[in-house]
Amino acid sequence: MTAAPGVAPAAGADTGLLSPVRAGTPVEAAVADEAWLQAMLDAEAALARAQAALGTLPRSAAEAITAAADASAFDVRALALASRETANPVVGLVRELGLRVARSDPAAAEYVHRGSTSQDVFDTGAMLVALRALRLIRADLRRSAEALAALAALHRDTAMAGRTLALHAVPTTFGLKAAGWRELVLQADRRLAALEDTLPVSLGGAAGTLAGYAEYAALAGADPVTYPDRLIDAFAEETGLARPVLPWHALRIPLADLAAALAFTTGALGKIAVDVQSLTRTEVGEVTEPAVAGRGGSSAMPHKRNPVLSTLIRAAALQVPALAGALTQCLVTEDERSAGVWHAEWSLLRECLRLAGGAAHTAVELSEGLVVAPDRMRNNLGLTGSQVVSERVAVVLAPRLGRIRAKELLTEASLTADREGSPLHSVLAALPEVRAHLGDAELAALLDPAAYTGAAGLLVDRALGPDAGPHTSPHLRPHARPHARTLPQE
Amino acid sequence: MTAAPGVAPAAGADTGLLSPVRAGTPVEAAVADEAWLQAMLDAEAALARAQAALGTLPRSAAEAITAAADASAFDVRALALASRETANPVVGLVRELGLRVARSDPAAAEYVHRGSTSQDVFDTGAMLVALRALRLIRADLRRSAEALAALAALHRDTAMAGRTLALHAVPTTFGLKAAGWRELVLQADRRLAALEDTLPVSLGGAAGTLAGYAEYAALAGADPVTYPDRLIDAFAEETGLARPVLPWHALRIPLADLAAALAFTTGALGKIAVDVQSLTRTEVGEVTEPAVAGRGGSSAMPHKRNPVLSTLIRAAALQVPALAGALTQCLVTEDERSAGVWHAEWSLLRECLRLAGGAAHTAVELSEGLVVAPDRMRNNLGLTGSQVVSERVAVVLAPRLGRIRAKELLTEASLTADREGSPLHSVLAALPEVRAHLGDAELAALLDPAAYTGAAGLLVDRALGPDAGPHTSPHLRPHARPHARTLPQE
Amino acid sequence: MTAAPGVAPAAGADTGLLSPVRAGTPVEAAVADEAWLQAMLDAEAALARAQAALGTLPRSAAEAITAAADASAFDVRALALASRETANPVVGLVRELGLRVARSDPAAAEYVHRGSTSQDVFDTGAMLVALRALRLIRADLRRSAEALAALAALHRDTAMAGRTLALHAVPTTFGLKAAGWRELVLQADRRLAALEDTLPVSLGGAAGTLAGYAEYAALAGADPVTYPDRLIDAFAEETGLARPVLPWHALRIPLADLAAALAFTTGALGKIAVDVQSLTRTEVGEVTEPAVAGRGGSSAMPHKRNPVLSTLIRAAALQVPALAGALTQCLVTEDERSAGVWHAEWSLLRECLRLAGGAAHTAVELSEGLVVAPDRMRNNLGLTGSQVVSERVAVVLAPRLGRIRAKELLTEASLTADREGSPLHSVLAALPEVRAHLGDAELAALLDPAAYTGAAGLLVDRALGPDAGPHTSPHLRPHARPHARTLPQE
Amino acid sequence: MTAAPGVAPAAGADTGLLSPVRAGTPVEAAVADEAWLQAMLDAEAALARAQAALGTLPRSAAEAITAAADASAFDVRALALASRETANPVVGLVRELGLRVARSDPAAAEYVHRGSTSQDVFDTGAMLVALRALRLIRADLRRSAEALAALAALHRDTAMAGRTLALHAVPTTFGLKAAGWRELVLQADRRLAALEDTLPVSLGGAAGTLAGYAEYAALAGADPVTYPDRLIDAFAEETGLARPVLPWHALRIPLADLAAALAFTTGALGKIAVDVQSLTRTEVGEVTEPAVAGRGGSSAMPHKRNPVLSTLIRAAALQVPALAGALTQCLVTEDERSAGVWHAEWSLLRECLRLAGGAAHTAVELSEGLVVAPDRMRNNLGLTGSQVVSERVAVVLAPRLGRIRAKELLTEASLTADREGSPLHSVLAALPEVRAHLGDAELAALLDPAAYTGAAGLLVDRALGPDAGPHTSPHLRPHARPHARTLPQE
Repeated sequence: MTAAPGVAPAAGADTGLLSPVRAGTPVEAAVADEAWLQAMLDAEAALARAQAALGTLPRSAAEAITAAADASAFDVRALALASRETANPVVGLVRELGLRVARSDPAAAEYVHRGSTSQDVFDTGAMLVALRALRLIRADLRRSAEALAALAALHRDTAMAGRTLALHAVPTTFGLKAAGWRELVLQADRRLAALEDTLPVSLGGAAGTLAGYAEYAALAGADPVTYPDRLIDAFAEETGLARPVLPWHALRIPLADLAAALAFTTGALGKIAVDVQSLTRTEVGEVTEPAVAGRGGSSAMPHKRNPVLSTLIRAAALQVPALAGALTQCLVTEDERSAGVWHAEWSLLRECLRLAGGAAHTAVELSEGLVVAPDRMRNNLGLTGSQVVSERVAVVLAPRLGRIRAKELLTEASLTADREGSPLHSVLAALPEVRAHLGDAELAALLDPAAYTGAAGLLVDRALGPDAGPHTSPHLRPHARPHARTLPQE
Repeated sequence: MTAAPGVAPAAGADTGLLSPVRAGTPVEAAVADEAWLQAMLDAEAALARAQAALGTLPRSAAEAITAAADASAFDVRALALASRETANPVVGLVRELGLRVARSDPAAAEYVHRGSTSQDVFDTGAMLVALRALRLIRADLRRSAEALAALAALHRDTAMAGRTLALHAVPTTFGLKAAGWRELVLQADRRLAALEDTLPVSLGGAAGTLAGYAEYAALAGADPVTYPDRLIDAFAEETGLARPVLPWHALRIPLADLAAALAFTTGALGKIAVDVQSLTRTEVGEVTEPAVAGRGGSSAMPHKRNPVLSTLIRAAALQVPALAGALTQCLVTEDERSAGVWHAEWSLLRECLRLAGGAAHTAVELSEGLVVAPDRMRNNLGLTGSQVVSERVAVVLAPRLGRIRAKELLTEASLTADREGSPLHSVLAALPEVRAHLGDAELAALLDPAAYTGAAGLLVDRALGPDAGPHTSPHLRPHARPHARTLPQE
Repeated sequence: MTAAPGVAPAAGADTGLLSPVRAGTPVEAAVADEAWLQAMLDAEAALARAQAALGTLPRSAAEAITAAADASAFDVRALALASRETANPVVGLVRELGLRVARSDPAAAEYVHRGSTSQDVFDTGAMLVALRALRLIRADLRRSAEALAALAALHRDTAMAGRTLALHAVPTTFGLKAAGWRELVLQADRRLAALEDTLPVSLGGAAGTLAGYAEYAALAGADPVTYPDRLIDAFAEETGLARPVLPWHALRIPLADLAAALAFTTGALGKIAVDVQSLTRTEVGEVTEPAVAGRGGSSAMPHKRNPVLSTLIRAAALQVPALAGALTQCLVTEDERSAGVWHAEWSLLRECLRLAGGAAHTAVELSEGLVVAPDRMRNNLGLTGSQVVSERVAVVLAPRLGRIRAKELLTEASLTADREGSPLHSVLAALPEVRAHLGDAELAALLDPAAYTGAAGLLVDRALGPDAGPHTSPHLRPHARPHARTLPQE
Repeated sequence: MTAAPGVAPAAGADTGLLSPVRAGTPVEAAVADEAWLQAMLDAEAALARAQAALGTLPRSAAEAITAAADASAFDVRALALASRETANPVVGLVRELGLRVARSDPAAAEYVHRGSTSQDVFDTGAMLVALRALRLIRADLRRSAEALAALAALHRDTAMAGRTLALHAVPTTFGLKAAGWRELVLQADRRLAALEDTLPVSLGGAAGTLAGYAEYAALAGADPVTYPDRLIDAFAEETGLARPVLPWHALRIPLADLAAALAFTTGALGKIAVDVQSLTRTEVGEVTEPAVAGRGGSSAMPHKRNPVLSTLIRAAALQVPALAGALTQCLVTEDERSAGVWHAEWSLLRECLRLAGGAAHTAVELSEGLVVAPDRMRNNLGLTGSQVVSERVAVVLAPRLGRIRAKELLTEASLTADREGSPLHSVLAALPEVRAHLGDAELAALLDPAAYTGAAGLLVDRALGPDAGPHTSPHLRPHARPHARTLPQE
């Protein structure tokens, strides 16, 4: 299986044809087969350098191995095909790497994969891929968060209908909605950031005891007792990954954490997407996706400008939680290395990274370019003829009529308004029970939707303010002071 | 976006590096991006021919479109990238197909995608891909079923320990186990066969009313009332797919059925895989995977010959049910076409097809080459010192001692045997309560595991026999006679 | 663990507080703990009667066992608690049943659970529960299908906006939408019907060989060779369940089929629910859920009448596919009986049955009482100022201007109309390129949305007509003639 | 719907019959319907007290409401049934609470649920339930961690076969395995601990703006600008929950975090369970579950003592990831409150809590009572005739023969040993290539499995040592020093 590009039958290009949410986005290349292969080669090279740093392997060998660890020289398809014989691609990779090193430095070939096992290389490579992908995703999340902060600030007081169970409820503001979207994005970013610091190298040797590494080290004169620990440190140093508490061949903590954080990320972005779609509907028209020439076209209908960005994001959000659930289940893995559970993780992880990354990239364009229509919001707020503020009138009447009677009265008045097709105002104005307590002007003021947005503005300020952001959210904050008051008391 | 291979940044090769279960298997190519593109082009061409057959489009145009509908001439990566603008790849495909047709026959270009909509083309293409994949999968399932039938027949009377909750229970036979595996494979095949006959064309036009098709037909002088129905027939005829009851843009029945059948398939094969692994364990050693030079090697341990086939199959079986669950959830899709739910299906479907197909292909080699070790089975049957037939002794003593006392006695005797490390035989032989009823020879005969396999042989015969197989299983058999007796009464 | 109601600490009532979709529905009681216990007792009694019918057990004993097999006399909580010791509730149930039989007929107690194993009883009980639940679900599905057929017929020609990717696409009819909903319901019913005929008894004995049954039979003088087969028949006869090809302790075909059919069912109903919600939105208002006094109230907002039925159905549809996916994965179960995989099925199955049943019951009220507002539909169709029929104009102009130019022209005209806030009609009427081909009256006629519903009416007729319904849908139809033409040719 | 116990048709007892893993465990009661109702009533009472603390509601009213908020006086079944009318149980609860308060203090009834909305009460109640359950789960996890630490320390040097892909790989120690189990348990505990500090109150009012609360406060003379923020603080204070950054009706962060942490927890415990089962198998026999009279009995086989604890845990671990995946997907929730997505969360959350709690409780008994058989471990280590240390010999020969030749030689020797049924030692001893480098004694020493456990002991020390445990694991540690060396350098 020497590299012979073109000989091995190709499975074909991975173009993203069935997954436009990630086609052409940076994360796609970062997690592609070639990138994965390079990351595994990086792991082999880093291992050699770590061993050299500890004096158990010649520096020149480490250099030769590092030089040979260049994925572009390998036939990744051939490795993939060969992996059917061994159930993982590392066995073939090691063979091929050895041959390549031998060509430049025959002695160095002896030191390839020294003391190691397939899973050390594969898992370390996977963590490198994940780390690189996380950085891309986080950069996009931060751009979205910034754009959403600007939207929230700009529309701090833009009143719109709050909608619950598909119906107008009470007014809210677009600023509060955007601030909520931003909070989700920040929370996603925080979860990914926590992972960035902790994705560990994998180093356990054949069954997690590092015996092979120690044995080679002993032959080279190192103290086999302290050596394994030092090797883990050196390997972490060389790769830039964290060091684990224990070898984790069968303790799949990092995978479960990645699954959770990536499902969170697409879920958060998916919430934004369905909100955008809800507001984009022809009858609602409160937002439109950024207008780009040619964007959103239909193959049939000339007039359509489809909300494609939110569509792509939502498509990702519908897939990742299920994939992540399957990945999490891989915690249940038998023995020192499972016959199948480990192997089930690989595609699932890549797809979670890729879809989350594609969604994050797509969300940047969506949040930076979203077009908001305050006039449509105002117009829609008037659709129910003030019923959208029925709660307020009920509250104001409650001390006079009793809570239950007040709510009852508003329910009846709303039904009457619906039946007669008249605004709530005129129905209420005709009721003696109302007129006894509220003058015309007072009633009119109460029925102004834009005047009933509660703490929306304040909440936006708090969410965007200096106290806000990643560092004040309680979620997963290690030492939260749960009840700290952040606003001055009167 | 004219096809310019090499210009568009490549996502890279889809080599199967992270999914050895399908790397290089026939199904992989059958569902690759290129194949999907070809299937969509096949749909466009079939649509043109169908319209030509009904006289609403020149035959020459249909021929030109058919000739141009050759995926190898398209830049699939460019289409994938362009699909981000429209959320599906068909808009770009139609544009490109039009250009290509125009080069050979400018007049024919007018007839490309006539009256159609992206979803008609994409979904019909998806059904063609699925149909082609199902045929490959079924061929492999049938080969496995045959191999398993041979194993079941050969080992009809090969006694082995039946194992429940990880422990020896009572004896069974390897033949019965293999017959059960075969039954699962046959059932999977039956579910896929049912789909093969019913995967439908998609033909609805912009919103499922076929209005565009009818409008064009009316311009061409066809009766717009009967035309849509005839067009569906003609399109089904041209593609070889079935015709649906209704346009199914938003009635995702075929997708849910594919999800169910493919999850069943990998689940069935996964059962075989975990059984093989259970029997392969070093301490058990009752089966081994086919020995192939180089197969099953480890990058660390020279002595290992890993059960790689079952490992690959199990890896697939751990993924597909979750993917299929997400696909099934896409039934919940709003309006005439969802903004995201439809788009979420594509990768999920392909991955289900590919993993199921890879698992089926891998299972052929596993079932055709599985090495069975009857001596190890016999040996293991003796491990518990006859406790594996404690049930039988309890049954035989029940009429004498009472059911409860008989079971109690055997429980105590088993505990004693464990404690003393002696065979159950000697413990029982020492008990007056036993000796009163059973002579030495009788006891010895009762304690022979190989003599206590119940109806195992008969069940194998029935499962393999002329009455057996696909047509007698009650599962999903439409007109089962549930209680029919298939064995002669005495 | 004699039954001592009140002594065992109660976990509390299962009231449905967290699952209103099924609270108080018939299926809830049919799958409750007590019902499950009764079904297992039914299995024990049927087994005794089957053995009696074959002469291997006294009829009087079978009668005593049948009489004692009354769940209301058992302490189900005590059984549940005891099941922690044995990982299933049957061990305790058998003990308790034996004691109860002994009280009325000491000799009969010997015959309780004769030759049997926990899984035979549990699984047969589960199939009885499932069968009873399926019947309830199917009755509700048929009522929904009938109501939806009436809606489809009534609104065969009620034009409304077809919506794709959240936007108005081209017109459709409410009749076609309702016909699609009905098709989904019929397909769900068909999948459940197929299961009703095939849910099998479980009869395998300790490890699937029926050895214990045969051993007892031999003691009673029966032919041990033919006996197992006859016992399966007799057991099927007594329970009303089907007979399996093979014992299925570790071949979980029926569970996977139930999972698939129930996920399909909730998915189908979930589609209806999200469509109802899409049309219910305040701005759309094309349908409203049945008005019932007190229904849909909010604890805060007096004016709201929430779409609660669709909300409940959708909540079920979001859960079942994931549960069903987990249930399907239980196909991957090791050995003759798994240590955990079998046990994972139980709650998942019950919850799938219960949620599907609750959703089906809720859907009856929804489909029978749905209020349709044709005037709102008409009004909404006018919202885009005829852009909803831009496709039609493009089609009509295509032969004159060329397909691509015609579409381009309409795209530009739609953008102009949007920008100027004017109807498409006036924009088009001002274009010489249009005026050259279309007169005023012709253009006006083309722009009438109600006149562009394509084959919608025909499709409704076909779906509701004598050729339609369960027997003509291709999905899972065993002997489909895929290309049969059902409409007369001109 | 006044409380009339017995009148409402009961769904029946929730006994845990189908879920023995949690039947009778503390968490079961903590998340039962009654407990959930009490938690919602606690939320109503805390809200009243918080408003009283801010002077916007009479203290006496808060006291009356608190006194009436006693779930035992409510008919939870009636509430469940009523919830079908409103899609949530809070509307009925508020009505009933109002009636009960009115009986003791008619004036106070006015203040029930003041300014509030169903979701505030339901979600705050859910967080209280979750918090109570988490505390129970964590207590159990800590007990398990302690027991596993003791096992790891005791068996620090107990050699056993490391197993990969179902086969003996190289030796490891039981101590290292137990230390890995403990690490998983500690990590689960850490994830739950992070949640304990951050589960927030829900307080948003009808659509997340707190407008109703502010309006009432304004009527009572409070500053409506600062009031909402102070109310959130006071509500957090009264409930003991954290305060959120923003109202989270539609920002479902806490639910996603609970889903992730609970899936992690059952996954971690599930890993222990499958390892226990792997080691329990009849042929392996290296561990047995704690022996308890009557535990593990079979209804058929007298000799069996089934590993029931690990079976129950594994059953939970197979369910929770799928449930958690569905719960995570509920992040994708439209508008200010979804019509169905919110409602889908409730049962899923309860089931995740209940299964995780049941598994944690069961794991305590498993880890505290696990019986380890070092003699069987030693014995099994010998099964492959030293092949289990083939890696070591290859390592030692590598510098003499070259890495590739050394591995090849060992592979051939292992195959020869298998074929001839002789120990690896004698095969190697006969090879001149080996004898040239290794003397008899040296070879024998190399082939001692117990001498090839690498860094296992050291890893155990590190994992259990003062530097180890929750505070040094990198996973989710916010400010990890990734490369810190914790062992002295030589």
